[in-house]
Amino acid sequence: MEYIQSPKNSRVKEWKKLLSKKDRDLTGRYIIEGEHLIEEALKTDDVMELMLQENNEVPDLWLFKDIPPVTKITADISKVISATKTPQGVFAVCRKSDSTIDLKKHKRFLLLDGVQDPGNIGTMIRTADAAGIDVVIMGEGSGDVYNPKVIRSAQGSHFHVPIIIGNLHTWIETFKASHVPVYGTALEGAVSYKEVRPTDSYALIVGNEGAGVDSTILQNTDQNLYIPIYGNSESLNVAVAAGILLYHLRK
Amino acid sequence: MEYIQSPKNSRVKEWKKLLSKKDRDLTGRYIIEGEHLIEEALKTDDVMELMLQENNEVPDLWLFKDIPPVTKITADISKVISATKTPQGVFAVCRKSDSTIDLKKHKRFLLLDGVQDPGNIGTMIRTADAAGIDVVIMGEGSGDVYNPKVIRSAQGSHFHVPIIIGNLHTWIETFKASHVPVYGTALEGAVSYKEVRPTDSYALIVGNEGAGVDSTILQNTDQNLYIPIYGNSESLNVAVAAGILLYHLRK
Repeated sequence: MEYIQSPKNSRVKEWKKLLSKKDRDLTGRYIIEGEHLIEEALKTDDVMELMLQENNEVPDLWLFKDIPPVTKITADISKVISATKTPQGVFAVCRKSDSTIDLKKHKRFLLLDGVQDPGNIGTMIRTADAAGIDVVIMGEGSGDVYNPKVIRSAQGSHFHVPIIIGNLHTWIETFKASHVPVYGTALEGAVSYKEVRPTDSYALIVGNEGAGVDSTILQNTDQNLYIPIYGNSESLNVAVAAGILLYHLRK
Repeated sequence: MEYIQSPKNSRVKEWKKLLSKKDRDLTGRYIIEGEHLIEEALKTDDVMELMLQENNEVPDLWLFKDIPPVTKITADISKVISATKTPQGVFAVCRKSDSTIDLKKHKRFLLLDGVQDPGNIGTMIRTADAAGIDVVIMGEGSGDVYNPKVIRSAQGSHFHVPIIIGNLHTWIETFKASHVPVYGTALEGAVSYKEVRPTDSYALIVGNEGAGVDSTILQNTDQNLYIPIYGNSESLNVAVAAGILLYHLRK
């Protein structure tokens, strides 16, 4: 097992760079940390290499599985390449997976239009996974799916649900051609979600925390939905709203 | 209007202390910031004083309403008393309000057992407000409702829904005596939430992010509910789960 001790080592610098979106885009790679996340990642072919801090126990799973190469690192290096204040000392570099949508097989879709908050994006990926969504589609203006905070909030669902980046207008046309009902979310010109019956296939679009779904998108949906507000709050958190709608639409 | 220019002024020190739970508990006060939040707070009797950073415009609402005393402060003081990196420069000191539950009037309750994450607590207060919950009850082991992050996530719902701190066991007995159905949330020994019909009154209990609702509480509920997981995630975020259940139970 290779053992790197200097935080100035060129590989450490490469790992560290993966904390920035620019470098993730450039390399097609991202970094994850924590035993549970890596356990989920190892069920896929996405893991390229593993890093384990000295004096940490080798996770059980690593002993029984044919795993990618492991590099031993120091606690100082852990701090350099971690996105958290108290790193667990277990890391993996993953390749972004190429997913394609097969409309004969995939029936349920969650589309994110301009959602920015990493916690919200991650929580929605986790919720989509729970609700049996087949594919999550990130509109071009949304935050980065491979941001460490997004990955942490999604709690492993990155490795369960295909996530693709695409033009939402184009996807809406594709869904219409395939008779997949497309639902937007809006406060005006919309019907209460309770009026819509659960269906086998659907595409739900949720929008930016402040501005909602873009009006040019809302004009092209089959139906726009709202969630009634019974009290005095102005709106719901977007991840909570997505949860209510995804579970309602699910047969 | 009084004008404080030194960050070492004793009143500045008092405001700053309200960023810690210890001092909020001691004084029965808390500090909020941002124009929107303060606008909501001014609809109640909870605001004791206002602070406005020099060169900031006086919010319109303050001109037309009988408002508590305003102190002008410097940008340096704003930084000292703010819980955010880029303060808006508008602050208020509020008193914690004393709420009492009236079981003839209040019918819908959300109970939090040991929920820790400030973002989750705040999002649930906001969701409870939206779903028409009458009172939120924080179990003794839950995080502080007046933490600045909780207040930010709740987006003003602190000033719409009464929030009380109490012993959940005692409250469950009270609800039972008043024929309010009590629902826990659990992964085992529970029924799917879809099997429960919406009712006029209910008390829903959600639990700690890792450990869930305490088992001694789950033993005393009328029914425990779970949300089916259709995909591969292990669970839902507690605030998302609360949203799904509160909107389902709502008639």
